Amino acid sequence: MTRSLSEREAWDVINAGKLGHLGCVDDGEPYVVPINYISIEGQIYSHSLAGRKVQAMRKHSRACLQVDRIKDDFNWQSAIAFGNFEEIRNDSERRTVLRKILEGFPKLTPVESELSRDAEPPTIVVFRLRVDRVSGVAED
Amino acid sequence: MTRSLSEREAWDVINAGKLGHLGCVDDGEPYVVPINYISIEGQIYSHSLAGRKVQAMRKHSRACLQVDRIKDDFNWQSAIAFGNFEEIRNDSERRTVLRKILEGFPKLTPVESELSRDAEPPTIVVFRLRVDRVSGVAED
Repeated sequence: MTRSLSEREAWDVINAGKLGHLGCVDDGEPYVVPINYISIEGQIYSHSLAGRKVQAMRKHSRACLQVDRIKDDFNWQSAIAFGNFEEIRNDSERRTVLRKILEGFPKLTPVESELSRDAEPPTIVVFRLRVDRVSGVAED
Repeated sequence: MTRSLSEREAWDVINAGKLGHLGCVDDGEPYVVPINYISIEGQIYSHSLAGRKVQAMRKHSRACLQVDRIKDDFNWQSAIAFGNFEEIRNDSERRTVLRKILEGFPKLTPVESELSRDAEPPTIVVFRLRVDRVSGVAED
């Protein structure tokens, strides 16, 4: 049977993951996209082109990141972190976070390739989910 | 680089999948959960215990299902279907949908085990996402 994860266990799942599903609300409509992320000291960081999810979160800052850890159909954990979207605009913090994200993903995606060509392209948004609540469920 | 999927391609990803990420809105807060689903004639069907997601969608019926098809970091597709939550309460339709869901998932999960013990336990909610829009992106 499924059980609830403790806050510590939920963070373990989030900290161990790299790919999560970001949920946001766009004009009352839920929107979900897979994202790569890193977690640092209880916050979640990612970067993105300024597309629909960023535009949605600029208007409605409440968001969540859901992370799966699946061994098989009977052995899995699912954690979710809730928080508020915050764009990181401070140059030095932005640089530090981008460096840590790139370290976490040595295989560059197109967005990250663009980053490596130009350290500060204006279209790349670096953001944080300021997490205030985590939970999760598991079957294990 | 990433490209947009056609509607046909997005449905191909959704129809080929079994596990997706359902997004809904709970009191203004986005909520994302992994679900097993089946698609029949352009609609998405699933079942669930009457937990947070069902309670949320009963109040705010707009929902989405996001489905990944990932080969590797440079070869993936992500599709999303938007629609309205509808609970299936009609006995015969409910039975038909449940049977199709169970056929799709021969390895029973706890919810499905419960179904197999009791064909109509009141706590199992069978629902449809009445899809009105699909889209997607890919790198391939």
